[in-house]
Amino acid sequence: MPQYKAPLRDVKFLLNEVFDYPGHYAQLSNGGEATPDMVDAILEGCATFCEEILSPINHSGDLEGCHFENGNVTTPKGFKEAYAEYVAGGWQGLSHPTEYGGQGLPMSLNLMKAEMMGTANWSFTMYPGLSLGCMNTVMQYGNEAQKNTYLPKLVSGEWTGTMCLTEPQCGTDLGQVKTKAEPVGDGSYKISGTKIFISAGEHDLAENIIHIVLARLPDAPKGTRGISLFIVPKFMVNADGSVGERNPVVCGSIEHKMGIRASATAVLNFDEAIGYMIAEPNKGLEAMFTFMNTARIGTAVQGIAHAELSYQGALPYAKERRSMRALSGKKDADQVADALIWHADVRRMLLTQKAVAEGGRSMIYHAAKLADNMVNGILEGNQAKYEDYDNRLGFYTPILKGFLTEMGLESANIGMQVFGGHGYIKEHGMEQIARDARISTLYEGTTGIQALDLLGRKVLLQTRGKCIKEFTNEMIGFAKGHAFSGGPIGAMARALIRRSLQWKWATLRIMLRAAKDRDTVSSSCHDFLMYSGFVMMAYFWLQQAVVASEKLADKSGKETPEFYKSKIQTAEFYFDRLLPRADGHRTGMLATSATTMAMDNEHFVMG
Amino acid sequence: MPQYKAPLRDVKFLLNEVFDYPGHYAQLSNGGEATPDMVDAILEGCATFCEEILSPINHSGDLEGCHFENGNVTTPKGFKEAYAEYVAGGWQGLSHPTEYGGQGLPMSLNLMKAEMMGTANWSFTMYPGLSLGCMNTVMQYGNEAQKNTYLPKLVSGEWTGTMCLTEPQCGTDLGQVKTKAEPVGDGSYKISGTKIFISAGEHDLAENIIHIVLARLPDAPKGTRGISLFIVPKFMVNADGSVGERNPVVCGSIEHKMGIRASATAVLNFDEAIGYMIAEPNKGLEAMFTFMNTARIGTAVQGIAHAELSYQGALPYAKERRSMRALSGKKDADQVADALIWHADVRRMLLTQKAVAEGGRSMIYHAAKLADNMVNGILEGNQAKYEDYDNRLGFYTPILKGFLTEMGLESANIGMQVFGGHGYIKEHGMEQIARDARISTLYEGTTGIQALDLLGRKVLLQTRGKCIKEFTNEMIGFAKGHAFSGGPIGAMARALIRRSLQWKWATLRIMLRAAKDRDTVSSSCHDFLMYSGFVMMAYFWLQQAVVASEKLADKSGKETPEFYKSKIQTAEFYFDRLLPRADGHRTGMLATSATTMAMDNEHFVMG
Repeated sequence: MPQYKAPLRDVKFLLNEVFDYPGHYAQLSNGGEATPDMVDAILEGCATFCEEILSPINHSGDLEGCHFENGNVTTPKGFKEAYAEYVAGGWQGLSHPTEYGGQGLPMSLNLMKAEMMGTANWSFTMYPGLSLGCMNTVMQYGNEAQKNTYLPKLVSGEWTGTMCLTEPQCGTDLGQVKTKAEPVGDGSYKISGTKIFISAGEHDLAENIIHIVLARLPDAPKGTRGISLFIVPKFMVNADGSVGERNPVVCGSIEHKMGIRASATAVLNFDEAIGYMIAEPNKGLEAMFTFMNTARIGTAVQGIAHAELSYQGALPYAKERRSMRALSGKKDADQVADALIWHADVRRMLLTQKAVAEGGRSMIYHAAKLADNMVNGILEGNQAKYEDYDNRLGFYTPILKGFLTEMGLESANIGMQVFGGHGYIKEHGMEQIARDARISTLYEGTTGIQALDLLGRKVLLQTRGKCIKEFTNEMIGFAKGHAFSGGPIGAMARALIRRSLQWKWATLRIMLRAAKDRDTVSSSCHDFLMYSGFVMMAYFWLQQAVVASEKLADKSGKETPEFYKSKIQTAEFYFDRLLPRADGHRTGMLATSATTMAMDNEHFVMG
Repeated sequence: MPQYKAPLRDVKFLLNEVFDYPGHYAQLSNGGEATPDMVDAILEGCATFCEEILSPINHSGDLEGCHFENGNVTTPKGFKEAYAEYVAGGWQGLSHPTEYGGQGLPMSLNLMKAEMMGTANWSFTMYPGLSLGCMNTVMQYGNEAQKNTYLPKLVSGEWTGTMCLTEPQCGTDLGQVKTKAEPVGDGSYKISGTKIFISAGEHDLAENIIHIVLARLPDAPKGTRGISLFIVPKFMVNADGSVGERNPVVCGSIEHKMGIRASATAVLNFDEAIGYMIAEPNKGLEAMFTFMNTARIGTAVQGIAHAELSYQGALPYAKERRSMRALSGKKDADQVADALIWHADVRRMLLTQKAVAEGGRSMIYHAAKLADNMVNGILEGNQAKYEDYDNRLGFYTPILKGFLTEMGLESANIGMQVFGGHGYIKEHGMEQIARDARISTLYEGTTGIQALDLLGRKVLLQTRGKCIKEFTNEMIGFAKGHAFSGGPIGAMARALIRRSLQWKWATLRIMLRAAKDRDTVSSSCHDFLMYSGFVMMAYFWLQQAVVASEKLADKSGKETPEFYKSKIQTAEFYFDRLLPRADGHRTGMLATSATTMAMDNEHFVMG
């Protein structure tokens, strides 16, 4: 069973050596408190909570699952106690304003916390995680009364929140939302309809649940331009802030899912439940999109979480389990056979997991800095700053969410593969990781939706290729400085320059074709997304390798040279063995849409 | 929920139009009975059995799983009745000799039967499937008394069989087997030890179970050269053939697995159980390898089974579910949104599944002809013929098993992806397919073991590259005849010629490197396997496309032109979108082992 150990060494490498987080925090309007000592204390406290409280109930939570009876959901054994500790530790309000009881720290710290918690126990992390979207929405769009009513309890974690978007007939296509909101006359609304797939929609961890619900006013225009946003509490809130009457929003059932079985996924039936409008009428979807990027990057974290946990499960097994002899001769001669880790193909698997977990982590940590600045724009009331950083983040979002969750799923499956047949058996915990990881490419927009968002919206519609031009120029700018270095750094830098030019030109070719053939965008987007991910990750590996190489050269890394050496070795492995997969995606994305579109719908047949 | 429909049109296309099975059967010593009418009757009867009996209990079997109590296993509801029908229909003995009650037909028919049954219900198919290895072993190595005692009941299906290889400390590395066999003095042995992962090791479907067990004689040499093979019946068999006393081989527990939950995977404790040696002392492993190729190709079938079933689940959903508008404009203008199938990225997913299922099927059907000839060698007592065809089959085996199961797993996951979030919910049945498919890359030799078998044994040790040379020459020979055709056939033929030359040269480069650096073989083998699979599948797609194109050209296919058109279209999709993935694997397999081997074992760390 994987016992989670927080990767603090790697986290600190990224924070202090690669991305200069101390300097970054120093320039944030809410970064003053995030001193290096404070950050260390938070990371270490969080690591302890994750290792000692969350990790031990990860596997048992999966085996037990959630229980549903008469509209009530009971979480697995230990979850309630763990959540109480989470609230007591003040973890929920880490990056929410002090005026509502939070600690007011930058949101990047919350993302780092979420990675550790999610790796230790993704199902558990869903409960407080969903509150985030709810809190952000109330904070951004709520009036003063709404903020004062809901935020203190949400920020403390005494209450949790949800986002109620999906309905049986629609998920991605929210223009089909049917849930109705009838004005009562007193400023409140009666909400009626059915929402499905509501994570943390019902549970026994908190005394109240605040739902943010997409619904239509009676006179609303059809489609996405007729959707409004409502706050619908599970229990009405009395004037003194205490919990009052039950609102008729009832959990009809919870889903039986492949994984994240300790996370309750509710069907919620709204039967004239009282709701309060938040944000402007018919502008609900826009409001919902304000924090879309950060929400999706929160899901991208799941990719690295499951790659990391699966690696942590596979590594000790590969060191202990013995099978056959290494092809280059006996390694553990006094033993009946060599440890798995001596076999190059097993090392290939472990290195793939490590490259995805650490490469992905560096991509997330970079994006988290942009998110900090975006939030600063909001806090400062600086719309231009918000938009600038949100746009920059918007370029990374689909790549991180789409690519990292796909690679995380692959890495989780690799972990099972290292275990051989034992990987398929529940007691080892490896198959749970693969099942838990499987949701990540489906929710918060499937990989296909991320791909369409990247190529269709971010590249073509919004920037006409400028985002790719800028990013590839940034990569070239960085790589150029190292292209004449000897050894692996120079080789990787030159490879990255070639890839940057290739990405730029390929994008141009797709843009030209898309102008004539719209289906090209949908036909090519998946391969474009994966290609982009592979090349982007190469950039982030090169950055890590350069820092490691400098630390070794100037002796500042002499205390843990093996850490820096292994960074360079993993980067080389990535360039040698994973980055080449970009080639297949490149050819795929440059293919015309003819072969995808040629077959008549009715000629897709079975039997 | 996918309702299985046997792909008889495609099966008959392969049998009659692509591979000339009628001509093939006519030249087999046991092919006389396999007339086209007989073959049709078998396929149609099997299809009905699979669609009406096996498919309906596939999902319920997963939900219920197997029950274990006091050493006894109860299979899920409906399995016992279905198995009784299977036995009553005489399906088990389809390709076993008439002298033991079988129908004596070529084994390819059994493989076609296994594909249909396995697609409808893989868990169920494991029970009769495991008997196959047992029957083949007894037939090949048993003495007359053993054959007469066990074969009639195994061939009828009244009894089932197992293969007991794996022990807690070893799976792949059977040299570590510890189970002991002490001679009793009367020609029998007392078998003691623990075997794990024994599929169909205990169940309630048949009145007796015949275990084939790997164990060591007291004076056996260490390692693989000291392993013998024993028949150990669950119940002793009386002189009159009736079932007698219980033999002390007891099921200690069954595994809780990620998938194939209706298939019982037993821990078997042998406590001085009576066994009878079969084959020569210390030659057990060799005997076990006689039918290794056919057993592994039986597992390769799982790749296409799950690709097919997942396609059958995803296709109707893609036609019914509506979301957004196609990028090239409204398609179902009178509906709230366009059907998923109008979106190019969804078509990409469906076409991938179709390309894997049908491309893989044609690879299996080709290999099945070799298997028929191999079995003929055995039946005719012609060792040279057996070896010749077994060697030819041996080249396909790791590619089919390794590549098709990996692609089958990917296809099963794609099916979930088409469903979006609904794919993650148990009731739709799509996630079961992905869980069931997950075992296929692990058992019967992991993908890593297949890869090592292909590159290390088949290519380097056994043939010094000759197998690749011959196969690529065969591909070139075929493609040359079409390289000057206009249109898609010519383009695909030329692409295949380029790939053939590339494969040949890349193999040579790896061979040269491997002579100096043994770790290269293990480091490169995974990418080599996947590369080989992608190129081989291209050859089999070209063959199908050529036949389809001829049928359209000479009007003999005028009754179902859409079938032939869709074959060519799927082939084009394969060449455009899937075959390019070979490029990434090519670069990967040509990388030196330096980057995989560089890191010290102890520098792989966590935290």
